Amino acid sequence: MRQPVYSLQSGMASDIPGRLPALFTDLYQLTMLQAYFHQRLHGRAVFSLFVRRLPAQRNYLLSCGLEAVLDYLEQLRFANDELEYLRSLELFSEPFLDWLRGFRFTGEVHAVPEGTVLFANEPILEVIAPLPEAQLIETCVMNQVHLQTVIASKAARVVVAAQGRTVIDFGARRTLGMDAAVQGARACYIAGVEATSNVLAGRLYGIPVSGTMAHSYIQATGDERAAFESFARTIPGTVLLVDTYDTLQGVKHVIELAQRTRDPIKVSAVRLDSGDLEHLAHETRRLLDAAGLRGIRIFGSSDLDEHEIERLLNAGAPIDGFGVGTGMGVSSDAPSLELVYKLTEYDAVGRTKLSTSKPVLPGRKQVYRRMRGGTMGGDVIARGDEECEGRPLLQRVMQRGRRLAALRDEQSLEAARARAHAEIAQLPRHVRQLAPAQPVYPVTVSTALQRYHASVRARISPRGGRQ
Amino acid sequence: MRQPVYSLQSGMASDIPGRLPALFTDLYQLTMLQAYFHQRLHGRAVFSLFVRRLPAQRNYLLSCGLEAVLDYLEQLRFANDELEYLRSLELFSEPFLDWLRGFRFTGEVHAVPEGTVLFANEPILEVIAPLPEAQLIETCVMNQVHLQTVIASKAARVVVAAQGRTVIDFGARRTLGMDAAVQGARACYIAGVEATSNVLAGRLYGIPVSGTMAHSYIQATGDERAAFESFARTIPGTVLLVDTYDTLQGVKHVIELAQRTRDPIKVSAVRLDSGDLEHLAHETRRLLDAAGLRGIRIFGSSDLDEHEIERLLNAGAPIDGFGVGTGMGVSSDAPSLELVYKLTEYDAVGRTKLSTSKPVLPGRKQVYRRMRGGTMGGDVIARGDEECEGRPLLQRVMQRGRRLAALRDEQSLEAARARAHAEIAQLPRHVRQLAPAQPVYPVTVSTALQRYHASVRARISPRGGRQ
Repeated sequence: MRQPVYSLQSGMASDIPGRLPALFTDLYQLTMLQAYFHQRLHGRAVFSLFVRRLPAQRNYLLSCGLEAVLDYLEQLRFANDELEYLRSLELFSEPFLDWLRGFRFTGEVHAVPEGTVLFANEPILEVIAPLPEAQLIETCVMNQVHLQTVIASKAARVVVAAQGRTVIDFGARRTLGMDAAVQGARACYIAGVEATSNVLAGRLYGIPVSGTMAHSYIQATGDERAAFESFARTIPGTVLLVDTYDTLQGVKHVIELAQRTRDPIKVSAVRLDSGDLEHLAHETRRLLDAAGLRGIRIFGSSDLDEHEIERLLNAGAPIDGFGVGTGMGVSSDAPSLELVYKLTEYDAVGRTKLSTSKPVLPGRKQVYRRMRGGTMGGDVIARGDEECEGRPLLQRVMQRGRRLAALRDEQSLEAARARAHAEIAQLPRHVRQLAPAQPVYPVTVSTALQRYHASVRARISPRGGRQ
Repeated sequence: MRQPVYSLQSGMASDIPGRLPALFTDLYQLTMLQAYFHQRLHGRAVFSLFVRRLPAQRNYLLSCGLEAVLDYLEQLRFANDELEYLRSLELFSEPFLDWLRGFRFTGEVHAVPEGTVLFANEPILEVIAPLPEAQLIETCVMNQVHLQTVIASKAARVVVAAQGRTVIDFGARRTLGMDAAVQGARACYIAGVEATSNVLAGRLYGIPVSGTMAHSYIQATGDERAAFESFARTIPGTVLLVDTYDTLQGVKHVIELAQRTRDPIKVSAVRLDSGDLEHLAHETRRLLDAAGLRGIRIFGSSDLDEHEIERLLNAGAPIDGFGVGTGMGVSSDAPSLELVYKLTEYDAVGRTKLSTSKPVLPGRKQVYRRMRGGTMGGDVIARGDEECEGRPLLQRVMQRGRRLAALRDEQSLEAARARAHAEIAQLPRHVRQLAPAQPVYPVTVSTALQRYHASVRARISPRGGRQ
């Protein structure tokens, strides 16, 4: 399955249909590219993508978005109409625009596979490419990995809180845009969400789609019983929404229709979408059980997040599945991550900044993860050519601008989902739980990388040049 | 200028290129449509889009996203490959899928123009259409208006805090997806942001684009002075980033290059991107002024939001412009709004829900705004056919599924931006300011609408049917 991409509407159609527009970048990438071009700065650069610090509400990250990045890199080129627009800005020289016409990404990417659990300062991916290529892609690479990693890291918490009960993604109407809805549904699925209401995401990624009914259906029909009956006739085995007028009365209407001897309706669940879900779920279960309708499940929705789901289940609310929308779709408690994309090497020389508050580990790196029994015991961030104890997390996924075909199975959506499931299960319990982990998961920097970092810093003059 | 839309990559190309996919909807819209179809429920429906409550951190909304909605409605249809996918779900009847093939939006839309200041419960738009048409579009209409209204409402605060200084949108790398970056840049522009770093948004909407340079440029060049010089040669009048190694040393490098007699470089501003911006801005200004470089401006960035900008300016920090990224791009303190799309009338009968916590005002509505001097004095939400004191905010913008051409000028991006500017200036000062407004802006419901609401509620039996 491929990810959806932008194209432009008829009036603005690009001459290369069906690809992510090369103009989805920050202007300064292009002005820097022009400066690189005129100074012939096209040596090999290494950039590293990582999250500086975890938000207080996140004990771990679930890395997602790599497939979107690889798709982008494979197809990146400037169309004539895009070059025309750049020319119109009167910032760029003709030789540079000519060179842009032939621009392709020809580099390497090393990355952790999607669905990998990660922590602060651990590279999600590293790009090794001629400096202008590695520079231009920064905006889009960050945007796409940020989107999916933010949402997957939130959704993983919701799935953990649901303790094996079904979670369905209802986010599409209030995510920040369509890209967030579609790729967000994918990220949720990797994190363990079972299905999405988003039909486009279902189609693009083969994710199961799911849905119930809206209040408007009941209101338009006018009579709740008649609405339930007609809907269940059209969609047998459906979920009926019972809270339009009076929740428990709605449940009684369902029972009446499901119990009558002539032509009973078939319903898989009732959905509670407002009010005190804990109380209503208990009462609904009692009514259904008393009517012998033990097979009808209870589905809850209405501003849910991981904390409310945990509270409901701790209180014993007999809810079998949860529809989670806005809170998961915008990651409301941590809507962004301190994701950065930093130059760590140029022309075979390690690079860093002197700022002590925002350290950048120089050079290519690898992350090694040690297990203790079946549990993750700690990670080491090491130099790229070091061998440490544990399992290395980064692997080469792209060479000379093309995906490595050998990894196709490992990179499938189902493989990513299985990986996420396994890795979340291997987290120390106090890291997997919702409350801030105390102590945090141990991530150290290898001695060799520490020494290298110090030596790179020492080579930079505090007066702003290299010594 | 048209908004960007999704298409699918080559492997999944739709047979109607360049339009928003009809499958961007929730599954339940389609199952409800099938039920409406089989029951011949295609009477005229009125749906209203509004925000139930403002977040605590928002005193007003800046309505945006209408143009994206109108584009979507004009081009909405199901392509063969989309119908094939729906058939594969084994949920839909052949007669229904046949009917979907001919589906078009043929209804009316009444809306406030983009850039209008609005408050809780005031309709952003109303859709008047055959029930299935008005139902199907819910997901996409909500998603697109939500995206732009969330971001515009946040950006308006940033612009107010900047007190006339330049604000530039730097959000692209950390918005939640590309749609959020591109349409978000548009929403920021309407709210008064001056330019965007996002080249694609610049091209699509004609927004000014702007950019400086990244640390990686300095680091790759190795020597800061050499990097400044070469960059300023390539992009004369540029902004130089001075904090890669030592901020004030960086400023001295700029001064040295700008002051030398042989071939001085031309720089419009220096950019401070880390550290104590207040202190560094004062020191930088002092150094520049002492060197006679009063014309070089100071541009600040680094995790800025409206509160930090207000604090810096209240402290007298001599900063002339601000680059604002993530905080504005994800609206970090209020990343979603309680936006809802509710049936308010069907077959000429007003509709509502009985829930007291989530009231829905029935029928078509109008909002009247009274002015006191040059200041907004209060709004009245009235029935659609009522005449009240003040200026009516909603107008018909689409009829029989087509935009009203007469409104084209009024709906231009520049008109929306001018409107936002004027309306924000007309807000009572305590509503315009960042702190929660006390008292809140007065919005009342007209007596006629209150009576109508009561009569519609009275017609609904508490047992869930109409009396």
